[in-house]
Amino acid sequence: MSDATRALASFLAELRYEDLPEAVVARTEDLFLDWLASLVAGGGQHPIPLFAGYARRMGPTSGPVQNLVDGTDTSAYFAALVNGAASHVVEQDDLHNSSVLHPATVVFPAALAMAQEQGKSGRDLIVASVAGYEAGIRIGEFLGRSHYRIFHTTGTVGTLAAAVAAGKILGLDRDGFINLLGSAGTQASGLWEFLRDAADSKQLHTAKAAADGVLAACLTADGLTGARNILEGDQGLAAGLSRDADARFLDDRLGERWALSETSFKFHASCRHTHPAADALLAVMREHDLKADDIESVTARVHQGAIDVLGRVDIPATIHQAKFSMGTVLGLIALHAHAGLAEFHQIPLDDAAVAAFRDKVTMQLDAEVDNAYPARWLGRVDVVTRDGRTLHGSIDEPKGDPGNTLSRAELEDKFRRLARFAGTLSEDAMGAAIERVWTLHNADSVTPLI
Amino acid sequence: MSDATRALASFLAELRYEDLPEAVVARTEDLFLDWLASLVAGGGQHPIPLFAGYARRMGPTSGPVQNLVDGTDTSAYFAALVNGAASHVVEQDDLHNSSVLHPATVVFPAALAMAQEQGKSGRDLIVASVAGYEAGIRIGEFLGRSHYRIFHTTGTVGTLAAAVAAGKILGLDRDGFINLLGSAGTQASGLWEFLRDAADSKQLHTAKAAADGVLAACLTADGLTGARNILEGDQGLAAGLSRDADARFLDDRLGERWALSETSFKFHASCRHTHPAADALLAVMREHDLKADDIESVTARVHQGAIDVLGRVDIPATIHQAKFSMGTVLGLIALHAHAGLAEFHQIPLDDAAVAAFRDKVTMQLDAEVDNAYPARWLGRVDVVTRDGRTLHGSIDEPKGDPGNTLSRAELEDKFRRLARFAGTLSEDAMGAAIERVWTLHNADSVTPLI
Repeated sequence: MSDATRALASFLAELRYEDLPEAVVARTEDLFLDWLASLVAGGGQHPIPLFAGYARRMGPTSGPVQNLVDGTDTSAYFAALVNGAASHVVEQDDLHNSSVLHPATVVFPAALAMAQEQGKSGRDLIVASVAGYEAGIRIGEFLGRSHYRIFHTTGTVGTLAAAVAAGKILGLDRDGFINLLGSAGTQASGLWEFLRDAADSKQLHTAKAAADGVLAACLTADGLTGARNILEGDQGLAAGLSRDADARFLDDRLGERWALSETSFKFHASCRHTHPAADALLAVMREHDLKADDIESVTARVHQGAIDVLGRVDIPATIHQAKFSMGTVLGLIALHAHAGLAEFHQIPLDDAAVAAFRDKVTMQLDAEVDNAYPARWLGRVDVVTRDGRTLHGSIDEPKGDPGNTLSRAELEDKFRRLARFAGTLSEDAMGAAIERVWTLHNADSVTPLI
Repeated sequence: MSDATRALASFLAELRYEDLPEAVVARTEDLFLDWLASLVAGGGQHPIPLFAGYARRMGPTSGPVQNLVDGTDTSAYFAALVNGAASHVVEQDDLHNSSVLHPATVVFPAALAMAQEQGKSGRDLIVASVAGYEAGIRIGEFLGRSHYRIFHTTGTVGTLAAAVAAGKILGLDRDGFINLLGSAGTQASGLWEFLRDAADSKQLHTAKAAADGVLAACLTADGLTGARNILEGDQGLAAGLSRDADARFLDDRLGERWALSETSFKFHASCRHTHPAADALLAVMREHDLKADDIESVTARVHQGAIDVLGRVDIPATIHQAKFSMGTVLGLIALHAHAGLAEFHQIPLDDAAVAAFRDKVTMQLDAEVDNAYPARWLGRVDVVTRDGRTLHGSIDEPKGDPGNTLSRAELEDKFRRLARFAGTLSEDAMGAAIERVWTLHNADSVTPLI
């Protein structure tokens, strides 16, 4: 077994709530509320009811864990499955830049499901979630850019991140975490191919990652063994699913660097790869007081990963696919100054003004942006105006990045906006949910959550 | 989407029981009994009780489907999970040579679970199983040898094979099968890394493949969409998990070539990669009337895949790992003329005579054997005797291969031997189970199966 895997497993086994800096605890609550907002907003969106129906078909009709989509009680496996599907569909959940991992939508469903099953406290939930973030982010960084070109990291690495969170609730020791990584890693899956067809696999990936993490953790705690070098072995994850894996990431400053705190909140309701350009366009339009009609063309200068993911979408066929269309996102920004859930859902998919703006947008690989990626997501746009000027928009930290983050007031506002979009919670219930999350570190129990 | 995928999906949608040659129907029953034998034998073996416990923890306590390991009723998902785990653990389940896929342990659990859930007939079960075999074998051939070097094909491709079988029970049309392949393919997982640690992932792989196939089929029938070119797309299965994929295999002689009938039964209770050498050693020992003590050394001349899989095992730490030790298997053959369940379980792992023989055995890559693989699994051994002779053992079709297959009487005998090993069925119950399988094509219902 590799030293890096051993070090990571030791860290995960030994991590205690008391070791967490206050800021990390608070940030975990921030991320948890942000996750809950995405979940509530997504519960009614296709294809989430299919997952809820599957849980009723295959699962028990009672149990210790909340299916937060329809409020029913079930087992940990099905709650993780449905909650994991629901919290990714509106594309508002968090993202860690350098790993290109959406941690919340896989870590929190698994951690919460096991915490509810085991009757654990808010602090247990927090430390388990931190464990999931720290492991998942490092494994995502380890697998590198070649992995992300083909694989949806939130599906593949998400399975390990969710498993670690669930395993931490179950109190695994170092050897347990080594086995757990083996059993989770050998289940890692998720291919980007669905994107060009606007197919529903993104939700399938997060659902399965969260649920398979729970499965791996429960079986490991009961005695299932796994490969002891799944990350670096000759027939392991990196061997099969990466060409540029770098083991130095796996145990990078464990206990000193809190990767969880580097996670970005999503401000726009679109693929994160569109955000740098969206913010850069906003900046240049404000600086020069431009309106959409003043613009002849926009060139978004991007990293390769943006082209890999967004380059598949020409004319969006669904609202979800529109979130992966650079031209559509910049059109909403130019015309409405926002690309939020309201804009995506209230403005028709074939809106003529958005379509016209979309035709003005092209993406171009930019060496500076690409070299900075994935550690930094730089926004660069070249705007040619109708009156013949070429203007440059530039931002170095998209809104929501750690250096340009959302305050608790902004997070509460986002939660209320997303909950109102769903229409399933009263204003009082929204307030109660917010209060519940801000006091998570003092909660003896996390059942019921909302 | 590719023409090959479209052709495969059309074939799967249009396949009817009436189209199946009689020999294919009979062979499906043969394979089904052989699968049931493996399942019954494996039910009590580690780690199967862990999966049964997980099903009780997460699943319903009643339902339309039989968990054949403990006789309880549950939902289709958990029955597929547990039955899929149990039928692979004693290493007696079938293998298709050129795809290096164990079809039964993933196809039958999924097909049976959905057939029981849907109240379908024996004929429905047979045609769904044939669909799973035909699709899975071709997809395994398509992904090629590079895939099998890192990935356990029965885990990866098994997910698609199981999904197809389950989807056929649900009556998917062509478009449904295209979506289904997308949703199953994006869940495909299973790495060989576990093997060097004698870890439990082989059962995890078959359990998850069968269960994820059920999940994919149910969600697809309800409206979940998947990537339309998951097999050949730029970010699909071949792109991510193979370097020598060949699309000509995908629609190879659909409706004319019945790949199911090419499947081999396992005679020895060890990894199939040991069988050619085992049969070649048996042959040369019989021909020259050799005893184990007469032998100074054995060189097994093998294909590269055997070295990839068996080369990880030095001194076996578990009975399961002993089945992946060429030296141990040849030792049992030389000393006891059999390497069956009885030998593996009754002879101690540290038996001195077996260990001594193991030390006499080496594997060597052989060009002729490697070139014939995976279409043909040639057995070649060089034996040096104590009296200084060098003898050669050679077989071209290991016992159980299509040209050297097991008769129904031999399959019944294997079923009874495996059931007696488990000790959970009376002799009458064994006879009834055999009768049930031989009349499957006339059964109105497949509930209860045993």
